[in-house]
Order: sequence, then structure tokens, then C-alpha cells
Amino acid sequence: MIGETICSEETAKVAYEVGRRIGERRAILVCGGRGGVMENAARGAKSVGGLTVGVLPGSSRDEANPYIDIAIVTGMGEARNVILVQSCQVLIAVEGMYGTLSEIAFACKFGIPVIGLKTWRVDRPGLTASPVLEAKTPEEGVEMAFQIIHSRKKE
Amino acid sequence: MIGETICSEETAKVAYEVGRRIGERRAILVCGGRGGVMENAARGAKSVGGLTVGVLPGSSRDEANPYIDIAIVTGMGEARNVILVQSCQVLIAVEGMYGTLSEIAFACKFGIPVIGLKTWRVDRPGLTASPVLEAKTPEEGVEMAFQIIHSRKKE
Amino acid sequence: MIGETICSEETAKVAYEVGRRIGERRAILVCGGRGGVMENAARGAKSVGGLTVGVLPGSSRDEANPYIDIAIVTGMGEARNVILVQSCQVLIAVEGMYGTLSEIAFACKFGIPVIGLKTWRVDRPGLTASPVLEAKTPEEGVEMAFQIIHSRKKE
Amino acid sequence: MIGETICSEETAKVAYEVGRRIGERRAILVCGGRGGVMENAARGAKSVGGLTVGVLPGSSRDEANPYIDIAIVTGMGEARNVILVQSCQVLIAVEGMYGTLSEIAFACKFGIPVIGLKTWRVDRPGLTASPVLEAKTPEEGVEMAFQIIHSRKKE
Repeated sequence: MIGETICSEETAKVAYEVGRRIGERRAILVCGGRGGVMENAARGAKSVGGLTVGVLPGSSRDEANPYIDIAIVTGMGEARNVILVQSCQVLIAVEGMYGTLSEIAFACKFGIPVIGLKTWRVDRPGLTASPVLEAKTPEEGVEMAFQIIHSRKKE
Repeated sequence: MIGETICSEETAKVAYEVGRRIGERRAILVCGGRGGVMENAARGAKSVGGLTVGVLPGSSRDEANPYIDIAIVTGMGEARNVILVQSCQVLIAVEGMYGTLSEIAFACKFGIPVIGLKTWRVDRPGLTASPVLEAKTPEEGVEMAFQIIHSRKKE
Repeated sequence: MIGETICSEETAKVAYEVGRRIGERRAILVCGGRGGVMENAARGAKSVGGLTVGVLPGSSRDEANPYIDIAIVTGMGEARNVILVQSCQVLIAVEGMYGTLSEIAFACKFGIPVIGLKTWRVDRPGLTASPVLEAKTPEEGVEMAFQIIHSRKKE
Repeated sequence: MIGETICSEETAKVAYEVGRRIGERRAILVCGGRGGVMENAARGAKSVGGLTVGVLPGSSRDEANPYIDIAIVTGMGEARNVILVQSCQVLIAVEGMYGTLSEIAFACKFGIPVIGLKTWRVDRPGLTASPVLEAKTPEEGVEMAFQIIHSRKKE
């Protein structure tokens, strides 16, 4: 679950819904642990008794939002994005700025599927298809994520 | 909870006991997620239904031992030691080689208390007291750890 | 100077020209230190007596291409991209895949200007202009880079 | 070359002498890039026209002392110690506190020789010899370092 610290009310609702549906499925929500999209997603997961992990950029667990159960204190600034991405089975991106773009890039690099809700479009000469799977609603995004996880398990 | 990948049977028992007592107290066991001391501590915590986190050095969650609930995949090699240390409230070191020594050093740097069971002794000109609190048994070590956590909460 | 390990002959020439022109201006070429775009750029810089730095992802200096003067051995995998970006005053991207995209994202995040030669286009809802300054030739790209550095020094 | 930000006048002289002798031999001085021992060593190297690299913990090159030629901006806090150590062929430790101790530990872990001037003594049950080679003067320390580098090249 990735996205920015500052977000609109509408985006906050989307993040909350994504978090709630992850929590309902008894999956672990891993996010950046701070405010905005991350806090709303964690709040959504906790509303249904889910478990939340926050991979923090700074050097103090006080940086975590109140809905984080397990704070991973990296003290590594933006390099924590690499850890966050690698620790997820599927990435759901909600809007987001450049930090989110770096995470989408790392996910593509590592072969971790990315589902996007109103997030970045990326393109380069020679690229045949967008690496980001677009979802229209939180329901659809979370459904896609679990389908991917289940199909990978069968392999 | 820190210590090495390879350890004697006696050390494995000590690690298991430390993990079990952490799990019994409903605290989260954070460790390096791999074999040896880490695996035995995680196994101890799981034997009583505890929750375990493994902060892995490599780029795959397959590296985690079977007793890890939450795998943090850093892909950063030894630099993950800094993250492991900062994510703990108290550090319990069981034996250990140079990786463990680096973690003790970081804990001292960050002001995180270290409790040692047969671990490193460090000394330099001008240092008045050892920064590592020595414990004789797993019981004593875990007891010391929770006393420190509780006394810090009161402050 | 960023770009991928594997590149076409045409891209290799572009990278070499970029490196040569950086070297001619007595600027330090900082790159990822490996093959492809990185090696050709470093070779270009060395052809005119320039100084080259390679910020390596692995744990051995043997990973560096033969045109690297100073090897920074991070052992941190892709997280080294964050270091590479922050250590540059301006970033010149030549083609590139997802690693390069992550570096463009970090540069935008940190406010470091990015000049692109046939590289990524990025876009998201609400973004008014592309954050990547497009150049058509190595000459133009390096010229733009030094204009930015000089204008920033005057501030 | 490792050591702390704050140091006595006597230690500063030792660091300066170490840096000067490294510079005289046309070797590259790699250090943490900040004040104290690091600044004095870099000043020594520059006094004879040496080349200096500073691997910085923070996110700005302004953090570097004025004697650093090449600033590597990691933004990773103490995790930069891992990079600093791996980027050296031999480590010379001058006094130092816990950051220095972590670097000695990593050097031992990675098999990089450590020469110590009034620095840490480390010991654990079962360890047969100290991993730190003690030198009495800057002359002796730098001489030992180059002997090690030369003997390794012959292998």
C-alpha cells in the first residue's frame, strides 16, 4: 500500500477502503507508516482488526501514525522505499507523488505486481504495455491483488 | 534479539528460552529472521503464540526461517543491522560474532539498552563502564528487558 | 549520469559522448559503476582525463567497470540508487529501464534537475509539466546541465 | 580512516598525520566526511595534494568538511558506516566512539584489515586474538596499512 503523506479527502476515503478490505481478508497491510494515504489505509485495516506494519523513513517510532502495530525504524530516508516494496507481495498505489513513483519503479524492477488507483502513468520508447494495472475502485484494486497472490501460490 | 546464523546446541537452547519468554509476555520478537540464534528465538516465541518479525539482509522472503510471521525484505546486506537495532526497544544479544558486535555498537550509539548473554565485551581508553548489561540466564535477561521497558514508559 | 547495464551500440555512443563532454569540463562523473551506459560514459570521461566515481550495488569493487577511479561499495542493491542521485548536482539520464525510472523519481523528489536523452516520460493526473528536461543530443544535454549548475551557483 | 566528529587536540594531530601520510603515498583517503577526526585527516591529505572522499550520513553535501573533494551523499544515517567500510582497502581507526566500533565490527565481518590508534578493544568468549592491529604512531599505522595492501596485491 503506497501513497503520499498529504492527500485530499476523497483520496483518504479510497485509502481507507483499500486498507479495510485488506484487513477483512486477514492479510497484513505494509505501508510507509506515516500520515495521509498511509494513515488512512492503516486506520481502515485496524477498523476490522487487521495487522499493520509501517516501514518508517526516520529514526524514531514516534513518527508512526497511531494505527501502526509494528514500526520498522529504518533511519534511511527515501531508501526505505526499496524495503517497503520488497516486503510486499503486491503493491497497491493510491495517487502519490515522486516517492510513489520510485516505489512503482522498484516494484517493476523486482517483478512485484503494481495495481494503481489514479496513480502514475509511465512510458518510454520501446515499452509495449504499461506496467501498472489500473483499477477503478478500491474493491476492484484489492480483488485484483488477491487474485494475483492466489494465482502465484498455485504455480 | 540478536545473534548469529550458526550456533551450538547450548546457545540454541538459550535463544529458544529468550524467545519463549518474550512471546509469553505478549511482546513482539524482532530479529534478523534467519537461522541459528534467530530461528531458535523465533521458534520459542511461536511455541507460546507470540508474534515474530524478521528483518532480512537479502532480497527474498524465502530467506526467512519458518517461525517468522512478518518478513521485512531489505536487500541491504549488513546495513539491515541498523534497521533491526532501531526497531527494538531493548536488545538482547546471545553470543554472536561481528554482525552482533555491530548491532551492539549501534544500540549504544542510539541509546537503546543492550542485555548480553555470553556476548561481546567492549572497552576503550576513557570508557568508565561497559555499555552491555550482562545477564546470566534467559530468565534474568528477559526480566531485565521488561523492567527497562516499563521504567521508560513511566518517565 | 544514469542508465542501464545493457544497451544498444547507438546508446553506448550517446553515453560515451555525454561522459567525454563532462570530462572535458573538469567535472566529476558520478555513475552506477557497472557496464553498458555507465561503462561507456566512464570510458568517455577517462578518454579526456576526467575523474570518475562508481556507486556500486554489490559488495565488491571487482564489480566496477575498468574506467572507474573511485569505487563506492554500498552492498545495498537498488537502494544505492538513492545515494547515486543525491551525490549528483544534475542528473543526465540516457534511455534506461526501471532502475533509471526510480532514479528520475528520486531526483524529482530531492529537487535535483533531470535531463533526459530518450528516457522515461512520466505523468499523473494533476501534473502540469513533465519533470524531465528533454535533450536531443549529448552536446545539448551536457550544455543544459552546466547551465543549470552555473545558474544555481549564482543564486 | 574512521573516527569521531568531536576529538581532542592531540587526537586531531594524530588524524592529520595519518591523512598526510596517506596523501603523500598518492592513495585516496575515504572517510565519513564530517568534522573532528575526519576533517583533520582530510586536511592532512589535502596539505600534500591528496584526493579525499567523504561518505556522508545526511542528505546534503553542505555537511561535508571543506577538505572533501568528492562528497557521497547517502541520506542513510549510520547505515553509511557499512558503505564507508566496504569502500576501503584497509581501515585505520583513530580513537572513536560507538560509530567507530560499528565500523570495526563491519570491517572484521567483511575481512577488511583494521589498524587501531588508541581505539576499541573487543573480546568475546572463544576469540583467540584481537581482530584490531594496534599501531603506536601515525607513521607506524600508515606503514602497516600499505604493507597489507601491497602483500594482498601480490597474492
